[in-house]
Amino acid sequence: MSQIQFTRNEQPKAKPDANHLGFGKYFTDHMLVMDYTEDQGWHDLQIVPYGPISLDPSAMVFHYGQEVFEGMKAYKTADGRISLFRPDMNLKRLNASCERISIPQVDPEALMEGIVELVSVDREWIPEGDDTSLYLRPFIIATEPCLGVRAAKEYKLMVILSPVGSYYPEGIHPVSIYVEDEYVRAVRGGTGMAKTSGNYASGIKAQEIAKLEGFSQVLWLDGVEKKYIEEVGSMNVFFKIGGEVITPELSGSILAGVTRDSAIALLRSWGLPVTERKLSVAELFQAARDGKLEEAFGTGTAAVISPIGTMKWGDEQISIAGGDTGEWSRKLYEAITGIQKGLLDDPFGWRQIIL
Amino acid sequence: MSQIQFTRNEQPKAKPDANHLGFGKYFTDHMLVMDYTEDQGWHDLQIVPYGPISLDPSAMVFHYGQEVFEGMKAYKTADGRISLFRPDMNLKRLNASCERISIPQVDPEALMEGIVELVSVDREWIPEGDDTSLYLRPFIIATEPCLGVRAAKEYKLMVILSPVGSYYPEGIHPVSIYVEDEYVRAVRGGTGMAKTSGNYASGIKAQEIAKLEGFSQVLWLDGVEKKYIEEVGSMNVFFKIGGEVITPELSGSILAGVTRDSAIALLRSWGLPVTERKLSVAELFQAARDGKLEEAFGTGTAAVISPIGTMKWGDEQISIAGGDTGEWSRKLYEAITGIQKGLLDDPFGWRQIIL
Repeated sequence: MSQIQFTRNEQPKAKPDANHLGFGKYFTDHMLVMDYTEDQGWHDLQIVPYGPISLDPSAMVFHYGQEVFEGMKAYKTADGRISLFRPDMNLKRLNASCERISIPQVDPEALMEGIVELVSVDREWIPEGDDTSLYLRPFIIATEPCLGVRAAKEYKLMVILSPVGSYYPEGIHPVSIYVEDEYVRAVRGGTGMAKTSGNYASGIKAQEIAKLEGFSQVLWLDGVEKKYIEEVGSMNVFFKIGGEVITPELSGSILAGVTRDSAIALLRSWGLPVTERKLSVAELFQAARDGKLEEAFGTGTAAVISPIGTMKWGDEQISIAGGDTGEWSRKLYEAITGIQKGLLDDPFGWRQIIL
Repeated sequence: MSQIQFTRNEQPKAKPDANHLGFGKYFTDHMLVMDYTEDQGWHDLQIVPYGPISLDPSAMVFHYGQEVFEGMKAYKTADGRISLFRPDMNLKRLNASCERISIPQVDPEALMEGIVELVSVDREWIPEGDDTSLYLRPFIIATEPCLGVRAAKEYKLMVILSPVGSYYPEGIHPVSIYVEDEYVRAVRGGTGMAKTSGNYASGIKAQEIAKLEGFSQVLWLDGVEKKYIEEVGSMNVFFKIGGEVITPELSGSILAGVTRDSAIALLRSWGLPVTERKLSVAELFQAARDGKLEEAFGTGTAAVISPIGTMKWGDEQISIAGGDTGEWSRKLYEAITGIQKGLLDDPFGWRQIIL
């Protein structure tokens, strides 16, 4: 082992049933922690037994939400190695989120080294079944005990690991989407491009209303005009219209998804034109009426590809790809998970074998 | 004592120097806690020694920001009693914030009873100097250990107490304000009307830039058009223009401040016309150029009244009330703090004697 201090968990837990993992419910035996103070900067990177953390009730994260996070997955490959998928993009985005939320940035190399060690220590926790992986959740919270509204002077970074199955209990399966035109997730000038807790808190209400109406997720419109499509649930979103794939451009209020970027590259490599531009919900529904909306899907680390089967906007409900998983949605899902698990060639060099 | 379970702190701390309290740096010997589970609802209201809380690293507040809070103050009155200022409004707003962030609402009477008991237990901590008070911070955090993006099923409510001096080290003193036209605090359809951590996290970056440019606080414009004035720092804002007082209307992205409401009532009782309406920064600066902008101030529980001495928008900088504390700013500050401390009559019945 490297310079990272390691305290072994002497009371390892029983591992959960790999067929009923769900998402983010089980955690491994260890976690990575690192602290920040003004004097020392980021210091004391350690692997310690997974367990509760103790914080003063005035810790600033509880009051003013200075928090950023990331989501990545580790896979056992077909030849018994362990891989991550484009972790450099996640670490870069973590620092971009830090910049927006005024949290001190982290040395990506030191963090990567810590993550590799952590995954190595808990490698027995990586599930091997279809649609399973080890989800990695790096996050940073403001820990300084003070109620003044300003950037904190003390932070804690943690990485926790969770063996997961499909994000949706039904696996890759078309979801029903409700176009949200009252609540807003983010607005340009806000924090939409950062992976930070406040964006998610603001979305829960609309998601609950959608669920009550029988829909799985919400389609978010832009905060300014409430016309343009931004994200779906906590995923980026793609539409295939008349042979062309369209995804909302990164306007400042949309998260720059790693799966989004990968989907664009793969689709283009397969000869499909992909355009990043503003797309209004009116244009989308007109395309559906004209019979040109061929496919729709969300992209994200948790669900990878989430096909959209139906969509409701006001009183109008449309069915997409016959309510089924579209051809390209399935192709993308298989390509990305195949690269992740070492079952397919990796033409872009995305798979990073770490162990 | 009532039904509230009480565990006395057997190791009380030394009290801080009442002349150097600052804001939110010191905490008393006890705190109020209450837990929520799906089965039991809100239960187990307790007063316990102030101290760290232990949370699983996957507690949802660390990831998806389900959090709401309030700010109130307790005062020792001239005749030795203890008062709160309009606590019913804070408890009502706490539940309004809960509603927006999908947190189960709290019984305001039970919470109020707990708050009174807590203040009673720690009454020796209420400072008596000018511009001092005991700041009360109720807050609720999502504690369920799970990484799924949805409303949590477990929460913790806490109330912590902090003896405070002036929010600004310089006391009531004109501040300099920078009109922020890149970053946005909130947008209609978002969470601006709720007192929730994400609104504050999103504002820290702009506040830091303003500080680097030599300004105390930021003036926030609306998220849609970036034209209309919303708040200043974490306060509501008022302008006296040609004899009329104007404050932004509660559009949905502005917090319904208790001090804002009190300032409106007091100003009207003094015969000043007060209008709640949209006010563009262009109109404001034109009024300044025309010599009609007589006074400007922020309102909030922490600072009470914060006069604005200068304001910068793009390349134009204006001075207000000669850069001094305006007549009505001072009058409001003295009236509100006088009512709070029992030095003045309380025509509106705002002072609530609790002990």
